[in-house]
Amino acid sequence: MDHRNQTVAVIGAGDYIGAEICKAFAAEGFTIFAGRRNGDKLAPLVAEIEAMGGRIEARTLDARNEDEVVAFIAEAEATAPLEVCIFNIGANVNFPFTETTERVFRKVWEMACYAGFLTGREAAKTMLPRNRGCIFFTGATAGLRGGKGFAAFASAKFGLRALAESAARELMPQGIHVAHLVIDSGVDTAWVRDRMAEAGKDRVLMDPASVAQTYIQLWKQPRDAWTFETQIRPMGEAW
Amino acid sequence: MDHRNQTVAVIGAGDYIGAEICKAFAAEGFTIFAGRRNGDKLAPLVAEIEAMGGRIEARTLDARNEDEVVAFIAEAEATAPLEVCIFNIGANVNFPFTETTERVFRKVWEMACYAGFLTGREAAKTMLPRNRGCIFFTGATAGLRGGKGFAAFASAKFGLRALAESAARELMPQGIHVAHLVIDSGVDTAWVRDRMAEAGKDRVLMDPASVAQTYIQLWKQPRDAWTFETQIRPMGEAW
Amino acid sequence: MDHRNQTVAVIGAGDYIGAEICKAFAAEGFTIFAGRRNGDKLAPLVAEIEAMGGRIEARTLDARNEDEVVAFIAEAEATAPLEVCIFNIGANVNFPFTETTERVFRKVWEMACYAGFLTGREAAKTMLPRNRGCIFFTGATAGLRGGKGFAAFASAKFGLRALAESAARELMPQGIHVAHLVIDSGVDTAWVRDRMAEAGKDRVLMDPASVAQTYIQLWKQPRDAWTFETQIRPMGEAW
Amino acid sequence: MDHRNQTVAVIGAGDYIGAEICKAFAAEGFTIFAGRRNGDKLAPLVAEIEAMGGRIEARTLDARNEDEVVAFIAEAEATAPLEVCIFNIGANVNFPFTETTERVFRKVWEMACYAGFLTGREAAKTMLPRNRGCIFFTGATAGLRGGKGFAAFASAKFGLRALAESAARELMPQGIHVAHLVIDSGVDTAWVRDRMAEAGKDRVLMDPASVAQTYIQLWKQPRDAWTFETQIRPMGEAW
Repeated sequence: MDHRNQTVAVIGAGDYIGAEICKAFAAEGFTIFAGRRNGDKLAPLVAEIEAMGGRIEARTLDARNEDEVVAFIAEAEATAPLEVCIFNIGANVNFPFTETTERVFRKVWEMACYAGFLTGREAAKTMLPRNRGCIFFTGATAGLRGGKGFAAFASAKFGLRALAESAARELMPQGIHVAHLVIDSGVDTAWVRDRMAEAGKDRVLMDPASVAQTYIQLWKQPRDAWTFETQIRPMGEAW
Repeated sequence: MDHRNQTVAVIGAGDYIGAEICKAFAAEGFTIFAGRRNGDKLAPLVAEIEAMGGRIEARTLDARNEDEVVAFIAEAEATAPLEVCIFNIGANVNFPFTETTERVFRKVWEMACYAGFLTGREAAKTMLPRNRGCIFFTGATAGLRGGKGFAAFASAKFGLRALAESAARELMPQGIHVAHLVIDSGVDTAWVRDRMAEAGKDRVLMDPASVAQTYIQLWKQPRDAWTFETQIRPMGEAW
Repeated sequence: MDHRNQTVAVIGAGDYIGAEICKAFAAEGFTIFAGRRNGDKLAPLVAEIEAMGGRIEARTLDARNEDEVVAFIAEAEATAPLEVCIFNIGANVNFPFTETTERVFRKVWEMACYAGFLTGREAAKTMLPRNRGCIFFTGATAGLRGGKGFAAFASAKFGLRALAESAARELMPQGIHVAHLVIDSGVDTAWVRDRMAEAGKDRVLMDPASVAQTYIQLWKQPRDAWTFETQIRPMGEAW
Repeated sequence: MDHRNQTVAVIGAGDYIGAEICKAFAAEGFTIFAGRRNGDKLAPLVAEIEAMGGRIEARTLDARNEDEVVAFIAEAEATAPLEVCIFNIGANVNFPFTETTERVFRKVWEMACYAGFLTGREAAKTMLPRNRGCIFFTGATAGLRGGKGFAAFASAKFGLRALAESAARELMPQGIHVAHLVIDSGVDTAWVRDRMAEAGKDRVLMDPASVAQTYIQLWKQPRDAWTFETQIRPMGEAW
């Protein structure tokens, strides 16, 4: 593997999509900075990436904490220029509107929107001086549609989409590619498979690795043909 | 004036749109519960509404405080059944993305989105037992488009729109009319007039009273033809 | 009834929504010009409106024919200034994509889109010299969403919405109110009631008279608070 | 170059985007079927593709004629299984609403929408028996926004987008990838360069080859992560 002297920061390096993003960019030769709430859980991912000859630094990170986000991005940049920053924290919950507590509403927003703002802003500050870099946000259908029971989640995801769009309008003319990827399906996890089996459904599920490849494609886009927003779903998904 | 034994709560009863909403519903015979950050500033509005034979209660209200919102809605309901609740707090700011502080981002969200959640949820709890009532949210173009410099404001307004949409899907089948009014223009205030004059522009501005009449029309809609979202702009507004 | 020296043209004055629009504007004192494919079928509507003291002229009109549309609008204008023009022709069909014939695709477009273009353009030409008037288009959810089996219908309705939006951007600054009303439900007709009964569903249906009242509200809007697009649905409609 | 026993049909193989699409898929080893109004103009493209070792068949094609489209797709399929079909005909015009003739309105629709329907339907019929294939439509911003002066063009492009969406909902679960690519910028042509120079503007223009690469990326997507709609624009494009 040829190594690049560039880093990719993944905020929300969870077990499925986040981990696959790390692997996909590691395979491209980047040094990965992976952050998640409990950094200890990153051990298997670190082992896997190192086994394939890749480089990764794992960190415990509460992305709702400004100081922690600032330090995380700064450390990545100190290692090698930050080329790609991906915000991948979700917080999917469903409650009847009147039973949504103020604590839930606030916490979901802090995780899925506010942490995305901190991440995007710090990445932008870091990348602007060289007028290059990519800032990608993992979105969801709930960022486009306020479904029943999703007041908290949709509100946060709409908020994330808005800040991504605002950042894109400001940063893209300055050479930074901002994108918002709408994932319109549950990804293929043991839990989703079990729910599908219970429901007697049999269909193509989205492999988290396919989501990661979409980010690779966005990163490869030339400056004259940048996508701000795209969405992906498996062939059988109704929408 | 015939008085109705019903209340209308206006959260964010500011000098322009909020005040006109109070006057318009007072003219329909409702008792108005008007809340704003500094309740003392409501004195002229109270005088005006009482002079025309209307009824209004003015309260100091920080709508970001759950207890205050609960108490405000409860007091309105205790006076007479809450028929209409209007959330009208804005927080329009514009900053370069990298200069948006976490304090601004959080505060704008608390005012324009979180307070709207508290308001809508408390109104819903109050209205659901009788399966009637209206919950209206004042939106803006920034709720549909993340413009340059509006990361904080658009994020909050998108979030407000999402929760309104989610609430509408849940509450409308239960008899509660939820609407989101997109106001696609500055309203006619002394400040806007001055800015227009400076810019050498001469055009029709939106009278806050016209906004208020739009809410009256929404309130009058029968149950078989409810609008969730509509937008208004003056004849010469580009969009 | 006080009569106004103004006409309202209704293109597509069918049995339900179209007829109610005619009645609602007749009740406001306008002279109605009602056109439909088979003008003979307008006899009961003429009788009803005249019985209530209203004025109406019924015409056979194929709105896909440019000469006929030109003549129809000209005749309305010759009677009294054309104040409101409403395009209300639908053409809802559903076919599998590969079974949609070119004849169906073309015909649905001619009825639901091309005829709307002819209508809107002629109304605009007529109204522009006095910088006033209203041009309203009856839209549908299919104008916003290309559902399965609706390639022909959605394509035509999207096309209608696009031309309405383009016309609005050009004509509203010149004093002409252009609006597109999205009707997100079947209206209450004998046929819909039967289908609901068969399906064992019981819910509030949309009264065509409520649709008509929405047009009345749009017509009453002042120039500083015009709506281009709004949508209506009954309280229990899922969306 | 390794050749595939598969064809790619390009309807609207014009000088810029269309030609680059042909070259990009020829470079992947496909046999290209290229159609345009005047097939003689394809001679330089044929020479270029053959010089690089690729395979291409050039045809004169009026895609508004059902028989011609049927024959064109059938000939491609007879040569080798049709794997990708791309509809790439535009018809950008701008006229004041009242000066848009019925002839222009109809012709723009026939070129940009009706021909797309014929193309998509014939491709679908051809691909469905083997439950695989790609049908891609070249869209434009005018497919999402009815700008001033674009009543004819936007109406046609909205119509194209609707039929693509409807086809996607029906065909994707059957294994056919349908996509609509929104190109939000003029592409880099001599004519656009001259207009930019006149306007004193200097910015990154979109290379038609970049558009073609976006189609290559869509074609490469696995079945569990298909994009229906995406948009591309150069880094400096305001939107």
